[in-house]
Amino acid sequence: MERSNTNLPDKIECWFDFGSGYAYFGAHDLCDVADRHGIPIVWRPNLLKEAFALTGATGLSETPLKSDYALLDWQRIARLKGMTFNPVEGPRRSSLLVLRSFYWIEKNAPEKTREFVLETFDTYYAQARDYSDPSVVGDIVDGLGLSRAQVADGANDPEIKATARDFSDEAIRRGIFGSPYFVVDGEPFWGWDRLPMLEQWIKQRGW
Amino acid sequence: MERSNTNLPDKIECWFDFGSGYAYFGAHDLCDVADRHGIPIVWRPNLLKEAFALTGATGLSETPLKSDYALLDWQRIARLKGMTFNPVEGPRRSSLLVLRSFYWIEKNAPEKTREFVLETFDTYYAQARDYSDPSVVGDIVDGLGLSRAQVADGANDPEIKATARDFSDEAIRRGIFGSPYFVVDGEPFWGWDRLPMLEQWIKQRGW
Repeated sequence: MERSNTNLPDKIECWFDFGSGYAYFGAHDLCDVADRHGIPIVWRPNLLKEAFALTGATGLSETPLKSDYALLDWQRIARLKGMTFNPVEGPRRSSLLVLRSFYWIEKNAPEKTREFVLETFDTYYAQARDYSDPSVVGDIVDGLGLSRAQVADGANDPEIKATARDFSDEAIRRGIFGSPYFVVDGEPFWGWDRLPMLEQWIKQRGW
Repeated sequence: MERSNTNLPDKIECWFDFGSGYAYFGAHDLCDVADRHGIPIVWRPNLLKEAFALTGATGLSETPLKSDYALLDWQRIARLKGMTFNPVEGPRRSSLLVLRSFYWIEKNAPEKTREFVLETFDTYYAQARDYSDPSVVGDIVDGLGLSRAQVADGANDPEIKATARDFSDEAIRRGIFGSPYFVVDGEPFWGWDRLPMLEQWIKQRGW
């Protein structure tokens, strides 16, 4: 990956919950932004429910009025981007297993993190396959050339569990209350729809 | 105002609360979008608190974590747009008086609605003057060439009060839960940051 300019941020942090529809679009679009400028992405999946306990928010799909808007908006974004939006139906499934699997992969096969993030989102939001099912996660990691058994064991490792928890705690400490939530040079950008502003910020190094 | 294209929506509805920081920016930027295409704006101020009761949301300035972000973000948008963001300090003031004044003006001097909206926002968010104070509203309407006494009486008219209430009810009925919230051809766009998407929608008449 070539850096387009030496005067660029050294990374973009992407904080998100694997159970966030806007993060599905945000992860894909962030890759485009980051690649245009040759900036590495630091993926920081976490569990939003702790922040929600502080802000009083609920998952979009469970919030009256907002849930109807979000459904319309996700389909609209998908049509605009030429992406498929076909999520798992019914109540939101736990993202804990893919969260922990991610941190095992980050530690042991860091070059696979982006692929794992994108594949995991596509599995849930485009292929309607439930990633709280270990066999579905097995298929994802298999597709990345990783060992199903190793990742499954790794996601169960107390140290990995602690890492996943620590990043959710860090999100709260840093005031990260939504998903996706990007940080560049300490500057926060909340939401898929702020990626154009984030890109302008990268080019100008702020204003 | 010339319409740039005959195949355009006949109006853009702008639903908002005068107590919303993002609506301050949204009202100004919406004028630019609407003027570029020669489309009239239908201003629909309302009180968000009814929708908040349904969605469980609270005003941004009173929400932990989000309030810090919003303050940073409003200043950032102001710098980007070359606008002043210098709101009334302390707890959020009631927007009821300016809301009712608006609907009196819409009925009796409809050509002044845009100016009233923009001046009211600037008064509160740029000049830090509290529009719950009748003398401040008097100054605004005075600046528009309207009679202080007439608008003050009008805002107190039971029929005008009912109109203001009806539009807050209509917002709830139509699932309008945030501010600013734009509607074009029945298609909803929530948030200042969706104006670029709204403009694309206007040009393409959807996708």
